[in-house]
Amino acid sequence: MLPSEISKHNNENLLGVVGANVILSIIAGYLTRHFIQEFIPIFLSTKHLFGNDQCKPEKRNIPEPMGIIAAGVYLISIFLFIPVLFFLWIQTGSEFPNLRLNMLLAAILSVTTGILLGFVDDMLDLRWRHKLIFPMLSSLPLLMIYYICGNSTSMLLPKYFQSFVGTSYINLGPLFYIYMGMVGIFCTNAINIIAGINGVEVGQGLVIGASVALFNIIQIYRLDDDWYHSFSLCMLLPFLSTSFALYSMNVYPAKVFVGDTYCYWAGMLLGTVGILGHFSKTLLLFCIPQVFNFLYSIPQLFHFVPCPRHRLPKFDAKGDQKLHMSMAEFEISKTSSLAKLIITIFRLFGLLHYREFEKDGSKWAEINNLTILNLILKFTGPLYEYRLNQAFLGIQIFCSFCAFLCRFYFAYLLYDVVN
Amino acid sequence: MLPSEISKHNNENLLGVVGANVILSIIAGYLTRHFIQEFIPIFLSTKHLFGNDQCKPEKRNIPEPMGIIAAGVYLISIFLFIPVLFFLWIQTGSEFPNLRLNMLLAAILSVTTGILLGFVDDMLDLRWRHKLIFPMLSSLPLLMIYYICGNSTSMLLPKYFQSFVGTSYINLGPLFYIYMGMVGIFCTNAINIIAGINGVEVGQGLVIGASVALFNIIQIYRLDDDWYHSFSLCMLLPFLSTSFALYSMNVYPAKVFVGDTYCYWAGMLLGTVGILGHFSKTLLLFCIPQVFNFLYSIPQLFHFVPCPRHRLPKFDAKGDQKLHMSMAEFEISKTSSLAKLIITIFRLFGLLHYREFEKDGSKWAEINNLTILNLILKFTGPLYEYRLNQAFLGIQIFCSFCAFLCRFYFAYLLYDVVN
Repeated sequence: MLPSEISKHNNENLLGVVGANVILSIIAGYLTRHFIQEFIPIFLSTKHLFGNDQCKPEKRNIPEPMGIIAAGVYLISIFLFIPVLFFLWIQTGSEFPNLRLNMLLAAILSVTTGILLGFVDDMLDLRWRHKLIFPMLSSLPLLMIYYICGNSTSMLLPKYFQSFVGTSYINLGPLFYIYMGMVGIFCTNAINIIAGINGVEVGQGLVIGASVALFNIIQIYRLDDDWYHSFSLCMLLPFLSTSFALYSMNVYPAKVFVGDTYCYWAGMLLGTVGILGHFSKTLLLFCIPQVFNFLYSIPQLFHFVPCPRHRLPKFDAKGDQKLHMSMAEFEISKTSSLAKLIITIFRLFGLLHYREFEKDGSKWAEINNLTILNLILKFTGPLYEYRLNQAFLGIQIFCSFCAFLCRFYFAYLLYDVVN
Repeated sequence: MLPSEISKHNNENLLGVVGANVILSIIAGYLTRHFIQEFIPIFLSTKHLFGNDQCKPEKRNIPEPMGIIAAGVYLISIFLFIPVLFFLWIQTGSEFPNLRLNMLLAAILSVTTGILLGFVDDMLDLRWRHKLIFPMLSSLPLLMIYYICGNSTSMLLPKYFQSFVGTSYINLGPLFYIYMGMVGIFCTNAINIIAGINGVEVGQGLVIGASVALFNIIQIYRLDDDWYHSFSLCMLLPFLSTSFALYSMNVYPAKVFVGDTYCYWAGMLLGTVGILGHFSKTLLLFCIPQVFNFLYSIPQLFHFVPCPRHRLPKFDAKGDQKLHMSMAEFEISKTSSLAKLIITIFRLFGLLHYREFEKDGSKWAEINNLTILNLILKFTGPLYEYRLNQAFLGIQIFCSFCAFLCRFYFAYLLYDVVN
């Protein structure tokens, strides 16, 4: 299935490669912290690049988008990492692994495009259509590389289905490429749709990134085909170290904001390693909170139910200094029946705060805005900002745990062989 | 010398490839103009991204850096172009040309990095050391691709030398890679060092880009190995069309400024095609005005002679509305002997305006700032801004003409074979 140069096993090099990558990553993490501190006054005083922290009693200017500094250090370390790999490759004396270099270049290209898109978005506030075109286009090279890497578009069916359908594999063909393109677009926006409280964007990036890295390490030990997973691991380690440095400055109380730059960078990177590493389905398992949040948001995103401009939890500056659910209000008589149906279903599953009240002589209702952060607050009641971040990241970690369970335990119940 | 997959001749595809590229380029040029007009109010009112036009009587805010819009459209058209090439490649049924895809990806990666660096520089005003690190690192993949494309580091010696040295080729080895790295860094900054008057940055990009494209077309007809030159041509055509659209808005009187984004994008692109297309020496011939300007600037850049912060020609707002040479003044007795030597040499060749005068009882001198724009004004006297741009671009076009003469005519006098 795989071209020989990709599947060729060369454990002797693996330790050197990952070792060099770890060293680069540690330096990158240190430099990120250093540069962020150097750039804070430049952002604030010289260039007036800052945002307001919405969830604090006093209004403070926080430098934004500091994600660009971490992303810049990340790119530098990856650009330094390519020659290391290159020299190890030409040292072996065997045929040069063009396909591996292709994968690496396509991956870095996608990530760089993601960073550029994010930074331009931070500076120019792009329209939605621009934000969809770029991830779509820059994942095209990934799909092409996937194609020339063996073009596996088959899915193994669960064993109970196999006798039923009469075949063990189902070939999705072009559909599989459309699915992967969607994974790319989804991942690019996945981090961005859960944002706005201190630490939550980088927190997500760290938890998902660390989960994928752990998965890669497990697979390197389990499987013979170690290139895909060591490639993914080497792309992720400098990301984790620079993200960690960024997180230490972005967590409550935030000294810097990460901006869309971080969100697109992290999302594009995760999507890229998932597609090129051939584990896009496992990646989606690690993104369950993001997938849930997306599905939960759909009624508001497509305006089936009313959607205010900001859906962030509301900071109670005059009261308990905690975050409360933010609400969407609407007149009941003017609501479509589709909206009423959706609201009924969500209430049935206990996923919606709903309250009716009188206003100007007519009947109105309020519902919480459909984001996972508001949903957490529905269950827990008002929380301090740092507690909400902890609660969400706790859920994210728990979901990663479940994903591993699914991937390695439940899979045995469904399939004879789990790779 | 070249791996077979690179040198493989397939003229039947060439017309299709270049044809598709031309169509994409025309659309890209049209879209650039459209998007620039759409973004002008966003830059001015919403995001406060503008610069002041220094050479006009009234102070006006000009949206900057509009190069990012042209660069964005360029990237979109190149991302759409890869699949076209890809389908043509897999259609032929022969072995997939991994190396060509590698070249393409490395080239786009370098260009994207250049755009990102330029835009970040426009927003954050990076230090010089940051601006040198990035082009250096992002040209590393280019050098690696050059290596695996056959690693030709030999230079053919002129025929009169051959009998003298006893060999027809001299192998520069690693020195050649250092030279190519320098070409990358020089090109990235080449456009940026001649900047500041309406139209001059994009004008340079257009003249050099068009010269290289013409050179590529000539070589496609002359040589059998057409991939390198058709690759370069396909990278350049969308650049030329988007640049042309940008030039129409940036020429006197400028409605938009292009910013460092344009300069780094154009420079990195030219350097990339020169290195990967194996014609870096010819490329430097097209950049003679930039090379001259760099050499002429050295005494000020390295502070051998005094260097004021801005070296742009001075607009005479109260007088004749023309641009005059800008000056550096210094006290003669406090000047180093190195500075005096440099000034003497430059005056000997008629390359320097020099005037002594009395100030506060001691002897002072003024010299023109050492840029090619001031040097033109030394010979012509004060010029209107649009005339200075025309004069400089005229020189650039004349130099391109000389470069062709050099490359294809004088070369026959020095070598037996000219490729």
